[in-house]
Amino acid sequence: MNSSSLIAAMMELVGDANVIDAPSDMEPHLIDWRKRHSGKAACVVFPRTTEQVSKVLAFCNDNGVKVFPQGGNTSVCGGSVPDHSGQSVLLNMRKMNRIVELNPRNNSMTVEAGCVLADIQSAALEVDRLFPLTLGAEGSCQIGGNIATNAGGTNVLRFGNTRDLILGIEVVLADGRIWNGLRSLRKNNSGYDLKNLFIGSEGTLGVVTAATLKLFPKPHAIATAMLGVDTVSAAVDEGLKLQAAFPGELVGLELISQSEFDISLRHADNARNPFQKTPNWTVLVELAAATGTSEALAERLTDALSGSFDNGVVQDALIASNEQQRAELWGIRHHVTEANGREGMGLTHDIAVPTYRIPDFVELAGQALAEHYPAAVPVVVGHMGDGNLHYIAMFTHEYWANVADKAAVQLKLSHLLYDIAAGMGGTFSAEHGIGSLHVSEMGIYKDAAEIALMQQFKQLLDPKDTMNPGRVLPNQVAAQDH
Amino acid sequence: MNSSSLIAAMMELVGDANVIDAPSDMEPHLIDWRKRHSGKAACVVFPRTTEQVSKVLAFCNDNGVKVFPQGGNTSVCGGSVPDHSGQSVLLNMRKMNRIVELNPRNNSMTVEAGCVLADIQSAALEVDRLFPLTLGAEGSCQIGGNIATNAGGTNVLRFGNTRDLILGIEVVLADGRIWNGLRSLRKNNSGYDLKNLFIGSEGTLGVVTAATLKLFPKPHAIATAMLGVDTVSAAVDEGLKLQAAFPGELVGLELISQSEFDISLRHADNARNPFQKTPNWTVLVELAAATGTSEALAERLTDALSGSFDNGVVQDALIASNEQQRAELWGIRHHVTEANGREGMGLTHDIAVPTYRIPDFVELAGQALAEHYPAAVPVVVGHMGDGNLHYIAMFTHEYWANVADKAAVQLKLSHLLYDIAAGMGGTFSAEHGIGSLHVSEMGIYKDAAEIALMQQFKQLLDPKDTMNPGRVLPNQVAAQDH
Repeated sequence: MNSSSLIAAMMELVGDANVIDAPSDMEPHLIDWRKRHSGKAACVVFPRTTEQVSKVLAFCNDNGVKVFPQGGNTSVCGGSVPDHSGQSVLLNMRKMNRIVELNPRNNSMTVEAGCVLADIQSAALEVDRLFPLTLGAEGSCQIGGNIATNAGGTNVLRFGNTRDLILGIEVVLADGRIWNGLRSLRKNNSGYDLKNLFIGSEGTLGVVTAATLKLFPKPHAIATAMLGVDTVSAAVDEGLKLQAAFPGELVGLELISQSEFDISLRHADNARNPFQKTPNWTVLVELAAATGTSEALAERLTDALSGSFDNGVVQDALIASNEQQRAELWGIRHHVTEANGREGMGLTHDIAVPTYRIPDFVELAGQALAEHYPAAVPVVVGHMGDGNLHYIAMFTHEYWANVADKAAVQLKLSHLLYDIAAGMGGTFSAEHGIGSLHVSEMGIYKDAAEIALMQQFKQLLDPKDTMNPGRVLPNQVAAQDH
Repeated sequence: MNSSSLIAAMMELVGDANVIDAPSDMEPHLIDWRKRHSGKAACVVFPRTTEQVSKVLAFCNDNGVKVFPQGGNTSVCGGSVPDHSGQSVLLNMRKMNRIVELNPRNNSMTVEAGCVLADIQSAALEVDRLFPLTLGAEGSCQIGGNIATNAGGTNVLRFGNTRDLILGIEVVLADGRIWNGLRSLRKNNSGYDLKNLFIGSEGTLGVVTAATLKLFPKPHAIATAMLGVDTVSAAVDEGLKLQAAFPGELVGLELISQSEFDISLRHADNARNPFQKTPNWTVLVELAAATGTSEALAERLTDALSGSFDNGVVQDALIASNEQQRAELWGIRHHVTEANGREGMGLTHDIAVPTYRIPDFVELAGQALAEHYPAAVPVVVGHMGDGNLHYIAMFTHEYWANVADKAAVQLKLSHLLYDIAAGMGGTFSAEHGIGSLHVSEMGIYKDAAEIALMQQFKQLLDPKDTMNPGRVLPNQVAAQDH
């Protein structure tokens, strides 16, 4: 269908004010925040209700128009921008941003998909509750996108991925059918679990329009520490010890390599090194408790660390004694993405392995890098407690500018690292998802039976392949054979 | 296909020693433990490997033979016994009972489906770890059945349902395809979440043959208390307060009505009432922590309760000061199923509502019972922290023997109670599942769009309807229309 007919139809369905098609208006929606992925669309549609989403999807399905859903456009895998056809609808959810119900007695909150994560966090805190999903993009990402991608972040160790924080969802299917699965129950064993199939399916099976979220008691005591250790093995051993000692209170357990620590400081304004000398490896630890004082919690943490300090496993330990010091320690961690961007061209790999295999992964990955790309500095930052590392090969801007076939380097390097992870039962995408960037890895690293099952579900729920086509699954066409 | 050909084929596939067909041998497998549900089968097959399961399922699918999977046969919904055709295969998993890998460093354990839950718990404890799934049937139920039914129990508040304790599963599909989804990663965002669709699908989409389980640190400090309160509102308020105070440590929060408490004591050998007078409502509280002492934990619990004791919300509080006292308090809770069976004919309803609505549910349910079945005593026991009550209408054996149309009473009563739960956004099956018992409720209480989606999935994965037919979903035939 031609673009002007499509735009007119969309205006009819959602109102003229909720459709844009001027290139300059659409431009911010057609390129991702890191300027690495871009696409085109006939128009951007901003539905205001679930019924409007339903009408848009039904129309597009009937007319073979591809639909690309978009939240806060903070994907790092090209999952939030359309393809290059220019004939598609970009469905932006930001106008569906109401908090529908906030129920502290039930520790639940029902929100529309376009709510910004930080606004949800704030609304929970206002009623003395915690919504624990915490990640770098929280100021602009939307909960619908978090759900579509099963986002992770720094609190997963204690509270789980986004999947674990969702009591119920509302979904509009490719053909416009609405499934209202909004529930606020903790237990419900009545039939198949549909919710989890949609969570993490990245908009390829339908559009999440609302969700009921789990809330938790707001922590009133927090203890934060930064530990300096000589080896990654010592870091992991200490981390596993803390996990065993504080299973209900350990909320964060982050690992930072010396290279990453120094990069973060180098590109920060007014940041100082809290250590006299940057350790080989830094472990950032955070405990949180609903009751008691931060002082008492810090004391328990100090006690737990004392043995490792005495026997030399931990060389240095900084315990934040006030909120400012805590912010300073976390600041180094939170600043890494921006700092890496200034430092050079960092090729990031979002791998996970069983936590205790992290030292093996770091060693083998370091060897592979030294052998094949000696110009790259290994930079490591990650959610150690989840076995999830962001393993970055950092090239200088100058070096990278002179690389002739950049795509070939990226491909070869990533497969060197993904092969190492796969050899340990690991994954090539721990928390960032697939988007358009990792579709080819799906075909390489997932087993054929699993891909075939996924393709069957795609074919069942979106037989015309109008929902976020080209994302997540390889060989969409092959799927039609089932 | 005739029975003798079927039996010969099965013997060919799994070996003569792993097939039984004599009625006396089969009998224990054809009736459930409460003697409320029974069925027939051509034979009982005991596969020893995943490959044998695959061959059996492929053969049955090719030949239109129905397959009924069975674990420990402890379903309370008729989910573990076959239908009455006598032409089917009962697939019993108990010979697949190996612990494949126990990895304390990764806090994971991979087991075959036929492992008995208590054996898994013990194996974890031996390496100083906890597998937290805990329920009455743990001495005989199998992990495959727990996964198939997403079993609940008394630790759900802290550790979640079975679903939340599973890192990966292996499944044989209806057509014999094997999906090996055994993983031990905490994070893996690579494609659709297939695992959760099979968990809780009660063997209607395939057979779970193995699983990788999450382990947790073994608690070294435990504090247990029994609180006596006057009203169910006070019980819930106190429970919510404790949940807020001990989010990482509160593992159990059970509610027991005066009637249930007295029934449990009345039918126990050597049990004494720990209270001077049974309270109107009893709350059983348990805290567990990885470190510290039980004494210190009990002291913190006492401190947290003191305010409610002083202001009269809690009338009586017993804190167990040793393991024997703890066992005595839990004994009253664990004994209820057996005691209820001796007391009379108890019609149990496994409902859930949002926790804070429990007082409303108890009030409205009590009114309905008084109005329609004044002969029934309301007996309540449940997992208060999850909003999950086992609401039992207790008739004397004498009264029940004289009820002419027992099925009509059960149906009317259950719908009175399920309507009340549904009116609060609740469910008619919180943790026991659907089996054959609640199939009609699925058609009544779930919305049509949701049932249609479930039927689509069933049709996709088991188009010939050979896997546990007649369970979970209503109108299997209608599903064929999609």
